Amino acid sequence: MRIFKWTLFFICISVLETSGQQQLEDYKLWLKYQTITNTDLAINYNALVKHAYISQGSPTLRNAKKEVELALSKMLGDDITFTNEWVPENTLVVDVYDNLSKDLKSLIAEEIKNVTHEGFLLKSVNYKNKKVTIISAKKDIGVLYGVFRFLNMMQTHSNLNNLNLVDNPKLDIRMLNHWDNLDRSVERGYAGFSLWNWQKLPEYIDERYIDYARANASIGINATALTNVNANALILTPMYLEKVKALADTFRSYGIKVYLTARFSAPIEIGNLDTADPLNADVKLWWKNKTKEIYEIIPDFGGFLVKANSEGQPGPQNYGKDHVDGANMMAEALKPYGGNVIWRAFVYSEHDETDRAKQAYDEFLPYDGNFMDNVLVQVKNGPIDFQPREPFHPMFGAMKKTPLIMEFQITQEYLGFSTHLVYLPKLFEEVLDADTYQRGEGSTVAKVIDGSLYGNEITGMAGVSNIGNDINWTGHPFAQANWYGFGRLAWDPYLSSEVIADEWLRATYSNDNKFVEPVKSMMLTSREAVVNYMNPLGLHHIFDTGHHYGPGPWVDNLGRPDWNPVYYHKADSLGVGFDRTPSGSNATEQYAPEIAQKYNDVKKIPEEYLLWFHHLPWDYKLDNGEILWDGIALKYQEGVDQVKDMINTWDNMKPYLSESEYREVAMLLEIQLKEAKWWRDACLLYFQTFSNRPLPEGVEKPTKSLEYFKSLKFPFAPGIRPRWD
Amino acid sequence: MRIFKWTLFFICISVLETSGQQQLEDYKLWLKYQTITNTDLAINYNALVKHAYISQGSPTLRNAKKEVELALSKMLGDDITFTNEWVPENTLVVDVYDNLSKDLKSLIAEEIKNVTHEGFLLKSVNYKNKKVTIISAKKDIGVLYGVFRFLNMMQTHSNLNNLNLVDNPKLDIRMLNHWDNLDRSVERGYAGFSLWNWQKLPEYIDERYIDYARANASIGINATALTNVNANALILTPMYLEKVKALADTFRSYGIKVYLTARFSAPIEIGNLDTADPLNADVKLWWKNKTKEIYEIIPDFGGFLVKANSEGQPGPQNYGKDHVDGANMMAEALKPYGGNVIWRAFVYSEHDETDRAKQAYDEFLPYDGNFMDNVLVQVKNGPIDFQPREPFHPMFGAMKKTPLIMEFQITQEYLGFSTHLVYLPKLFEEVLDADTYQRGEGSTVAKVIDGSLYGNEITGMAGVSNIGNDINWTGHPFAQANWYGFGRLAWDPYLSSEVIADEWLRATYSNDNKFVEPVKSMMLTSREAVVNYMNPLGLHHIFDTGHHYGPGPWVDNLGRPDWNPVYYHKADSLGVGFDRTPSGSNATEQYAPEIAQKYNDVKKIPEEYLLWFHHLPWDYKLDNGEILWDGIALKYQEGVDQVKDMINTWDNMKPYLSESEYREVAMLLEIQLKEAKWWRDACLLYFQTFSNRPLPEGVEKPTKSLEYFKSLKFPFAPGIRPRWD
Repeated sequence: MRIFKWTLFFICISVLETSGQQQLEDYKLWLKYQTITNTDLAINYNALVKHAYISQGSPTLRNAKKEVELALSKMLGDDITFTNEWVPENTLVVDVYDNLSKDLKSLIAEEIKNVTHEGFLLKSVNYKNKKVTIISAKKDIGVLYGVFRFLNMMQTHSNLNNLNLVDNPKLDIRMLNHWDNLDRSVERGYAGFSLWNWQKLPEYIDERYIDYARANASIGINATALTNVNANALILTPMYLEKVKALADTFRSYGIKVYLTARFSAPIEIGNLDTADPLNADVKLWWKNKTKEIYEIIPDFGGFLVKANSEGQPGPQNYGKDHVDGANMMAEALKPYGGNVIWRAFVYSEHDETDRAKQAYDEFLPYDGNFMDNVLVQVKNGPIDFQPREPFHPMFGAMKKTPLIMEFQITQEYLGFSTHLVYLPKLFEEVLDADTYQRGEGSTVAKVIDGSLYGNEITGMAGVSNIGNDINWTGHPFAQANWYGFGRLAWDPYLSSEVIADEWLRATYSNDNKFVEPVKSMMLTSREAVVNYMNPLGLHHIFDTGHHYGPGPWVDNLGRPDWNPVYYHKADSLGVGFDRTPSGSNATEQYAPEIAQKYNDVKKIPEEYLLWFHHLPWDYKLDNGEILWDGIALKYQEGVDQVKDMINTWDNMKPYLSESEYREVAMLLEIQLKEAKWWRDACLLYFQTFSNRPLPEGVEKPTKSLEYFKSLKFPFAPGIRPRWD
Repeated sequence: MRIFKWTLFFICISVLETSGQQQLEDYKLWLKYQTITNTDLAINYNALVKHAYISQGSPTLRNAKKEVELALSKMLGDDITFTNEWVPENTLVVDVYDNLSKDLKSLIAEEIKNVTHEGFLLKSVNYKNKKVTIISAKKDIGVLYGVFRFLNMMQTHSNLNNLNLVDNPKLDIRMLNHWDNLDRSVERGYAGFSLWNWQKLPEYIDERYIDYARANASIGINATALTNVNANALILTPMYLEKVKALADTFRSYGIKVYLTARFSAPIEIGNLDTADPLNADVKLWWKNKTKEIYEIIPDFGGFLVKANSEGQPGPQNYGKDHVDGANMMAEALKPYGGNVIWRAFVYSEHDETDRAKQAYDEFLPYDGNFMDNVLVQVKNGPIDFQPREPFHPMFGAMKKTPLIMEFQITQEYLGFSTHLVYLPKLFEEVLDADTYQRGEGSTVAKVIDGSLYGNEITGMAGVSNIGNDINWTGHPFAQANWYGFGRLAWDPYLSSEVIADEWLRATYSNDNKFVEPVKSMMLTSREAVVNYMNPLGLHHIFDTGHHYGPGPWVDNLGRPDWNPVYYHKADSLGVGFDRTPSGSNATEQYAPEIAQKYNDVKKIPEEYLLWFHHLPWDYKLDNGEILWDGIALKYQEGVDQVKDMINTWDNMKPYLSESEYREVAMLLEIQLKEAKWWRDACLLYFQTFSNRPLPEGVEKPTKSLEYFKSLKFPFAPGIRPRWD
């Protein structure tokens, strides 16, 4: 009988593969639940789950049940028995603690004490001379999270015989930020267009919304801001709120709360007021009433995400008020309902002559301690803007009395869009592990974020979504790993990027180590590769105008100085780099002394930040003895070579991939190689006009001229700012 | 063994259904190749195809082979033997005639004479005491078409025992027009955004491009214009042409030629000329060189589709020249390569005070006979603009020396977007069957189009695509039937819409007659329903501004008179309707006398065109004795009631549908009902301000006020014109 079942499933797989519709497989993300073809393992797992009791007392528990049924039938076949009530034959028990029988409770009574309201417990117990696996939690959502983790462990062929795992999320708000506009364009979106089909809402609930919720719940994401931070006030009108309610209703049973971006001038635009002054009584009342209106239809509404007085967005400063006035005004409206204000610290002024990298810190530090307790300040990982590499943002650790929510960018605005394979958890990990020294050694960014450093009441991490309506969700199949990895790190910011890559590869592609190990290694290298071929040695923001597609280090004609690449690299005949030491902008003073001293000293600063903090001559000697010009050129070449290695690695994986699985990534890697060379050639030709030095040996000669690269125009590059803004 | 196989396939299906990912099934369109569960039929089919010889001598034949392998394995299981060379065991033979053995040739020698270069032959023969099924053709593409037809017959459970079918397409150019912009917005697109991912082309060949080509080839579509008729000249620059080449290379083996829309002012915009005057030597040379450049990389390029001097698009009239000058200039450039110019007749001027409905005829008729022989003039089905119902365009039949290509709109610009179930082949059929009387009785539009009336050398039909990047391609699952039906009618404009609905339903959903018959009936009624609840009795173009979403009969403030609904319905205290008889605009004179006389006579005109041609008092007596006002009101109500019936029909189909199959259409029907009521209430309240009469018995009372309906705004309705235009 067992053998017979395996045969069945092989047939199914072969039919799917013949159809050549790989994208339909890609749609399933890391929830593919591939048939377990290792017979021993399958027999082992089958014994563990063959008689499953799954509670279905609430929508969330019913989701858990559906997921288990789907997953086990796909992985193990369909001779598993499911019961809604406990019967003695059960070998798998899935329920909240309170629902369990006294006997079963006693077996996990100790462990359950350590489970928090979103956490879960997976435990193998001996019960009446039988092995029973318990997935339990204090709340329904914990059970769902536990189920997803258990199924992930099965997908990754983990040993499930002696489970004893309590896992609680380390952050409260684990959130995606969708920069989605109401016309379904997505600012910085490279995976098609917005998932939210506003025209068909509220009646039409696209199945995709449910699969979006499933995918997020599977990695612990519990919040989503549906709309662009460059906000449109119409989202707050009744017509749109009905649509938002339909999404919130769909996401609720997966534990996901909806947030909206609030345009600060909404009281004027949709409220018929003539001011949006946060201290004006009518304005306050308008926001209170609007908030009440929202909570009446979405009782668990998360709150407002606000970009104010930044890049042209309206804000309290338009009325001579400050960020505290603005944020607290909204916080007061949300407070009675348990909602939060997430106020972005991404501010910099064209009228401020100081270094852009310093401005958010300078502006927000004085406010520390003045925000209401339901305000979180959302800070990008670095002080400029989601570059391939930045030092950590100096606000982390410095802002001691205000909960800071980390903002990572999952979408690859400055990382080659969705055509470049770049494994971002490696970048996220680097930031989270960075030591701020703000409370002595070991004051890592992760500890700031999870509240353990200063004892914050509320904590969070936000990721700017890379999700669009491409069938595969993220444009590049490997960009799914960035969504996955963001969620895992938001759950536990101490996880290693390597472990995450391992999990993702096994659930998505294969458990064969001959595949997993080389491809994991390729993923882990990929982030350094993109740094090398785009922005080596601390170079930054030398992207082409507006769309940020490809190199534009020569751009010097934009409306604001701090939007021009030349502002950031400051190349001249003497050298290159931005002096942020005390002899320059002194941005280093915003860090703890231990960091400042290290970064100020050209001999101690890690080389990857060299030109971020120092303007150095072209013949400056690097650690390895090369002069700076040669070092830059060789780094660009190294990046290109790393992409070539990635292509080789992938080619070697053919035996483990279907033809179309192989091909879709192979085609994208070819684009990545072409564009890595474009970056290398364009940047080196440009910087060479200053260095006046030949390319060192080992660097391939450019095949086009600098004028050619400068002439390239991409008026329809995806992800550009909305035109209605 | 046989029984065992069926079990296998049942398991596969149940797994797919459990996953709840109906959209992934919808993606497969009418090529689902569902397992044939009727054992007798399966045994019969299996015997016919069990030993299949399929040539693989060319990319097109390899596509045929792949399709047969995919389809038979899904429908019948995997114990079919495939051979690349003829062996005596073969029961199915798939190859071009020339490749067949002498023996086999002799069995189809007579029939093959009737096969044209894209046609095919399906024949059951007795060969050496064995039944053999032959799929053959003169050319590879015919074989592919024959394979798709054969597989469709199998999908629809047709009797395949005694085949003897020769089928040739009746039109030469069977073409989709994509109104897709380079930023991937789609003008009048309601199924997401453009399939063409320009940023990732040419390297990244999305699997979807191949499935697009498969789907088109399966219904005989052999041409596609990739870009919007409101054109952007950049598509003709080398960077984009490389991308177009990649698509053309992908489509070629499926028999599909690529066309581009040519912006008339391209020589100025991308050619550095200071004029686009079609008689200017530099301009002519520029187009010649550009055409050469295109054919060098796309040797089978189809040609240019041009919208000129229409709705703001540039054209020859900007230089005092006419449409003939413009079209022939391009035709001359294309002629050496066998390319065509498709020149749109959709023109009307705001400076022309005459009836908009008359202008295209008036402008183009004088040119009849003056176009080069590789120019086709593309005419919309009706004289205004893709309304739910229009009389046929008077140019059909009147333009005797110029090949006219029919332009249907598959995307539902004026038909409720992709939320309304409207089966359009019913509309297409009505137009094709219309008798122009231009060469006596029986001079149908179909005969104009297929060239049989006037002996045109080249013929064609174009459909404005309803395809986008929604997973299900067309937004509404039933809108797939409109793509399917368009293709079938372009192949054979004499097919009945009922037969097409039957084919589509069986291939897409089920062969169970208890499902097919009621749902087919629902589809066939759906077009009259939308006419009733939007534009009954000849009303037209009373849609809301710009986006055409919902009713706007009150709109009177647009920049051009002929864009305002009040221009079209002319409602006043005396009555309603557009007098196009000799007492009015005399548009009827553009038709043959037989038609003109009938339409001029209010007693003879078919009631469905009444207000298109006549302005009548509110108390005018209709045939059934009702006064006009009551008749209008009851028609609106009838439309709403018909949608209610559709909902009932669909509800009754639950036993034949998976839960999610049922639900996705049920949700859309709810929107359709809501919007049908919106149309009824808004239009009746508005027209009531003129009629000053109560609603007749049987018409539901509006629940909102006219002011409410007027206040509705939809700034982000999909499908609006490109903003860069």
